[in-house]
Amino acid sequence: MAVNLEAPEALLPVPGVRLAVAEAAIKKPGRKDVLLIELAEGAQVAGVFTKSAFAAAPVQLCRERLKKTGAIRALLVNSGNANAATGKDGIDSARATTAAVAGALGIRAEAVLPFSTGVIGQQLPVTRINAAVGHASGRLDADAWLAAAQAIMTTDTVPKGASRRVTTKQGEVTVTGIAKGVGMIHPDMATMLAFVATDAKLSAPQVRKCLRDAVGVSFNCATVDGDTSTNDSCVLVATGRAGGRALAAGSRDYKLVAAAVTEVCVELAQATVRDGEGATRFVTLAVGGARSVAEARAVAFSVAHSPLVKTALFAGDANWGRLAMAIGKAGVRGLDARRVSVKLGDVAVLRRGEPHPDYREALGAAVLARPEYTIAIDLGRGRARARIWTCDLSHDYVKINAEYRT
Amino acid sequence: MAVNLEAPEALLPVPGVRLAVAEAAIKKPGRKDVLLIELAEGAQVAGVFTKSAFAAAPVQLCRERLKKTGAIRALLVNSGNANAATGKDGIDSARATTAAVAGALGIRAEAVLPFSTGVIGQQLPVTRINAAVGHASGRLDADAWLAAAQAIMTTDTVPKGASRRVTTKQGEVTVTGIAKGVGMIHPDMATMLAFVATDAKLSAPQVRKCLRDAVGVSFNCATVDGDTSTNDSCVLVATGRAGGRALAAGSRDYKLVAAAVTEVCVELAQATVRDGEGATRFVTLAVGGARSVAEARAVAFSVAHSPLVKTALFAGDANWGRLAMAIGKAGVRGLDARRVSVKLGDVAVLRRGEPHPDYREALGAAVLARPEYTIAIDLGRGRARARIWTCDLSHDYVKINAEYRT
Repeated sequence: MAVNLEAPEALLPVPGVRLAVAEAAIKKPGRKDVLLIELAEGAQVAGVFTKSAFAAAPVQLCRERLKKTGAIRALLVNSGNANAATGKDGIDSARATTAAVAGALGIRAEAVLPFSTGVIGQQLPVTRINAAVGHASGRLDADAWLAAAQAIMTTDTVPKGASRRVTTKQGEVTVTGIAKGVGMIHPDMATMLAFVATDAKLSAPQVRKCLRDAVGVSFNCATVDGDTSTNDSCVLVATGRAGGRALAAGSRDYKLVAAAVTEVCVELAQATVRDGEGATRFVTLAVGGARSVAEARAVAFSVAHSPLVKTALFAGDANWGRLAMAIGKAGVRGLDARRVSVKLGDVAVLRRGEPHPDYREALGAAVLARPEYTIAIDLGRGRARARIWTCDLSHDYVKINAEYRT
Repeated sequence: MAVNLEAPEALLPVPGVRLAVAEAAIKKPGRKDVLLIELAEGAQVAGVFTKSAFAAAPVQLCRERLKKTGAIRALLVNSGNANAATGKDGIDSARATTAAVAGALGIRAEAVLPFSTGVIGQQLPVTRINAAVGHASGRLDADAWLAAAQAIMTTDTVPKGASRRVTTKQGEVTVTGIAKGVGMIHPDMATMLAFVATDAKLSAPQVRKCLRDAVGVSFNCATVDGDTSTNDSCVLVATGRAGGRALAAGSRDYKLVAAAVTEVCVELAQATVRDGEGATRFVTLAVGGARSVAEARAVAFSVAHSPLVKTALFAGDANWGRLAMAIGKAGVRGLDARRVSVKLGDVAVLRRGEPHPDYREALGAAVLARPEYTIAIDLGRGRARARIWTCDLSHDYVKINAEYRT
């Protein structure tokens, strides 16, 4: 029961990108769990990845290949198995599946990036994946974005995708992205898996900058459970099929495209939280009056990760004392509780450390009964601010994760 | 359903300490929710308190009074209301209730320390508490430790107390302590509330050192949900009634008493985790091979606070990939996953980054089916180690905390 989230009706094709899905019975039979994405020659690709010390085998291989070459021609994605904590065999498996893609498409293995999501600590079924790759490579289609969004789902209940179109001197430019969540979501670089493509022509440094900027205000502002995945990967592809010269850094057209990429990333990041495991509430935490953005984010995530806050949000219980607790434990040096103010939606609860005289329980309860609202926290010590998105902790989160492998 | 925890059968009286409980209907009527502890003249008292920026009014007052005077003569404790995030009125309430104690016992208000636990953000019912104080002050009794342990409970299901007796040149010396948990438990100095008393004669600096040392290896090694309370307080009282000269620092007798204090604190800290909200498992996390204790603790708490690990522990699911995830996100700079080993009980799961060849799912599942076990993690990069205790995240944790105020 995702919060205010429906499957995208249609996703715009991006010239230079073709996709296909296939079945490899990775976790269980009967569902599409392999996605192959082919990129036109000349596409510029940038990626950001998890900071986990247990980075999965595909993440290690992505990093290695992106460092060696700018000429990426295909992405291979599987759900149902993360190929993480799998040691040397896991690296060999990732190499073997990308070699199968290279064979099927007639390109070099180094031009293929692998991505995996699912259970950690189990070896990939390489033979079945390679068979699925063969099958998919014969059915590549520019219009398969929605099927692609479905193939990468794990505990997601809704496929996640977004498109934007902007007009530049390169003509109409499209941005389309897909992502999956929805547990182990506290991206420390990018969310679990997200793929965004545009046909705009961008130079390699511009693609990297555009992705970095977009991820900073989108995926890195989302948290479901504070658990950072071993497989977080976000990739931006610019196929250049819109033609003309690469958009100049800082130009009006670059800003238009970058804004569209950011919008797509924000929509996808919010979708991972709206569909967070067991989520019944979508909550924006807006922290202001901080001395630095890092400090504002520390407070926002301290609140967002507090199990006591999250269970109160689930109950719709305006137990704002738990907000005070979570602000207090955030580790902000010298924070003066007598300057802190808190609002639930438009309702002032705490004003400069004192319970607000007009506050009544019923007012707070009315806000927390909504499926979607903002909690605003003012630290009263500076001008920096941060805004993140999170969800509640419900019975279903425990149920989903206690039964994940059964 | 606390894990391997029963109420103490009897707690030993400590010469120089008398206690009484009374009813003030603070959260609801019909239960003893006020505890008064009287200390003999000359008792040495030390306290450690939460590091929360939203430290509760009683914590603020305790700090102020312990700084001014060593001559503490009474402790006043209430459950059902934390008197936290209550602004100036909260401070006034804490002063008013301690003034009532001073009046009833004929001592100075500055000689009384207040402690509160319960809902945050509501004002104390001062009049009812003061009436209860009057009632309690006429019934002080050296044998009321168990009743005291019961009076400070909130969501605790079992009263928590422990006693030790050691023989020194001061004769037989007793150490008795009580504590309460069991949610908002990730003490950043001491747990929610713990009171430990001994009749040993110790100097003021020795009492402080003894408490600091004991807390470091007990309460500061316990976590239920990673939420640090606004009210964490741990107090050690040495009444000196055993007589003789204060035990010399570093002497054999000091070490005996200090060891007994530590044992009592460890037993109480473990009890708060065994009775953690909704707990069905008591898990020791032993992290070794670290470059520093801080690094070992960071990994241990990253694992202990991961909702995905905790739900797997609840399910008894040997999903060790989630352990790898939680180790990987702990923020240990330069951690090499290829050197990390993990054991569930005696069962090796991961050996230097590779899945152990002898590991079978059934072996891990057999360990995780137990109510109590150790997870050992070796980082393979140093000699420092740390050991902490935690519990699982069950349906009941969500239920208890979603319904806490109803």
